[in-house]
Amino acid sequence: MSDRAMGELAPPERLLLGPGPANIHPRVHLALAAPLLGHLDPAFLAIMDDTVTLLRQAFRTQNQLTIPISGTGSAGMEAALCNVLEPGDTIVIGVNGYFGERMSDMASRYGAKVVRVEAPWGTALQPELFEAALRQQASVKVVAVVHAETSTGVLQPLREIAALAKAKGALFLVDTVTSLGGADVRCDDWGIDICYSGTQKCIGAPPGLAPLTLSPQALAVLRARKTKVANWYLDLTLLDKYWGSDRVYHHTAPISMIYSLREALCITLEEGLDARHGRHHRSAAMLRAGLQGMGIQPFVPDSIRANPLTTVVIPAGVDDLAVRKALLNDFSIEIGGGLGPLRGKVWRVGLMGYNSTPRSVFTFLSALEQLLPRHGFKVSPGSGLAAAQHALAT
Amino acid sequence: MSDRAMGELAPPERLLLGPGPANIHPRVHLALAAPLLGHLDPAFLAIMDDTVTLLRQAFRTQNQLTIPISGTGSAGMEAALCNVLEPGDTIVIGVNGYFGERMSDMASRYGAKVVRVEAPWGTALQPELFEAALRQQASVKVVAVVHAETSTGVLQPLREIAALAKAKGALFLVDTVTSLGGADVRCDDWGIDICYSGTQKCIGAPPGLAPLTLSPQALAVLRARKTKVANWYLDLTLLDKYWGSDRVYHHTAPISMIYSLREALCITLEEGLDARHGRHHRSAAMLRAGLQGMGIQPFVPDSIRANPLTTVVIPAGVDDLAVRKALLNDFSIEIGGGLGPLRGKVWRVGLMGYNSTPRSVFTFLSALEQLLPRHGFKVSPGSGLAAAQHALAT
Repeated sequence: MSDRAMGELAPPERLLLGPGPANIHPRVHLALAAPLLGHLDPAFLAIMDDTVTLLRQAFRTQNQLTIPISGTGSAGMEAALCNVLEPGDTIVIGVNGYFGERMSDMASRYGAKVVRVEAPWGTALQPELFEAALRQQASVKVVAVVHAETSTGVLQPLREIAALAKAKGALFLVDTVTSLGGADVRCDDWGIDICYSGTQKCIGAPPGLAPLTLSPQALAVLRARKTKVANWYLDLTLLDKYWGSDRVYHHTAPISMIYSLREALCITLEEGLDARHGRHHRSAAMLRAGLQGMGIQPFVPDSIRANPLTTVVIPAGVDDLAVRKALLNDFSIEIGGGLGPLRGKVWRVGLMGYNSTPRSVFTFLSALEQLLPRHGFKVSPGSGLAAAQHALAT
Repeated sequence: MSDRAMGELAPPERLLLGPGPANIHPRVHLALAAPLLGHLDPAFLAIMDDTVTLLRQAFRTQNQLTIPISGTGSAGMEAALCNVLEPGDTIVIGVNGYFGERMSDMASRYGAKVVRVEAPWGTALQPELFEAALRQQASVKVVAVVHAETSTGVLQPLREIAALAKAKGALFLVDTVTSLGGADVRCDDWGIDICYSGTQKCIGAPPGLAPLTLSPQALAVLRARKTKVANWYLDLTLLDKYWGSDRVYHHTAPISMIYSLREALCITLEEGLDARHGRHHRSAAMLRAGLQGMGIQPFVPDSIRANPLTTVVIPAGVDDLAVRKALLNDFSIEIGGGLGPLRGKVWRVGLMGYNSTPRSVFTFLSALEQLLPRHGFKVSPGSGLAAAQHALAT
């Protein structure tokens, strides 16, 4: 053996308070490092079965077809769309942020006719506008919505839109990348037909997998397709045969990532979904109170806020990049900048999964209080912490 | 916290001698467990750059566009095809095994006209047949070949086919999932335009990523597309902007998997590619000698064997599944069964990356010598080991 081919791999320890990934529980770190198994080993098949069982609980569903897609959340989005859409189908998509835009782009690549129901970034989608849009279409295959829009921190009302989709005979498709594990998601109760998420946010695993579930109605649409799914890797007619009892080889499952997801889901369900959602609610409330105490305003009102991701307006005159760089370099804390039209206008502060704690909030507020005065924004010392502590106590 | 949501994650320690995944170096286990970073953190961007630099060395290329796709080897296959094919394009595909078939399926989903150049499973593709097939086509966009066919253990001649593709003005696309890191692959010298691999075989990382490289010619074809890439997640026009200097967000990179790939590539290149290929050659020779010493015949002749994966004919009267089960349960050794028409007819024994060692060969032969007599196949004691030891010594 010669010298090292490269410097040693030594990623710094960060507090990850951006839009994801978040930090993960030490048990999940250990799971990643567990011995590898073959993808058809009975011991691995049992781990797959466990993972499916746990995912059903996380999605609050009985759906048979519930699996992790072997790609990141965006692969989940594409799998959700490409399996039910055929060329010429109409899909009605709510667009009030970056990820609604992304859905529109993807759906059009599969030859669907995309009808957009828009709302300004930072506001929630309006069920009435869906009603109007649906009325104008002869037939609609899918109605699609991003639950927690990661670009704005807005949570959409799902039940009303679900009812409208159902009345039109359309499937209801929901992106829960940023909500699952951090905000209530009830696939069966709310009538969600297709739901996908990511692993690196409130579920508490590293990025790399996309949990996905299909209702019996969605499965029937998949089985009645006239054309092959245009995307081989994400073709659920094939994936279902590997994850189902047939165990027909499709692709080599990402073993270590599945380990990490199983462990993260165990931790999530040991805490309990309701308790976990409550924790995300309290952390977000503390953070918002603390920031307001410092004179920084939230970008969206409380009534439509997504607890896992808080967006705040960057105070006038403050240099976005300079503050984020200082947070990273001086305190090893990551927060997110704005996407698209919100670039330079908002910060996105994630309190997700393992990181959704008073400790994270205090650490972040303390660092920000120290930094902001150096960047032209006056903060009365301790004002943020005091407000956050007050929120924690009440 | 309540009780555990599930039994503890405790995968048994296996010797993975199937078609992949193989076992990984302890340094790679540690890399998987390293602290997470955000996907736009400068510290992670540096790790991405390192990974690209190392991948170029592994592929023996100067290609600018060289990245790991965030999916398994099959996603690499699909990325290779969908980015250069447009509806109506002609692709000539060598089919002499399961993965050539898979390429044909994928290419047809993207609307390409597929011309198959076939050879019986267990034989190598014949350049003359490519010559004849190319002569019959007015214009060919891509010629595609699987270097080491994982279903048969056959290595294809690449240089002759590359020259034919080039003469026809077609791009040359090669699957090196099972060869990269275990057999010589020279993208630039041999005129390979599009090359992809997997991480879980001779490269020595867990499954989950697909290294991919495109020559300037392939990149020009990508940039001259008339239609958007039909597959959003694998769209290299978008991925290139994230992995290139623009750093435009596309999807959240699978951080831990990238760590593991970087570390595995470091180990690969510290050993040196030539030394590593020599090791794979010697291990395969030992294994074949040992099996022949026991009276078990290889499925393919030495002249076309792929060293990372040895296929052998299951002796008449021996129960395929019973032996593989006993290997797994009594000795914790995994080998692979046959795929498709070779089911029940061959075993596939992988000696890949970290596992391509005399120790693996001795362990496997010893276990097999003990098992086979119980399953109706007489073995003269020590005959396999003696032959393997002799091969090691010469």
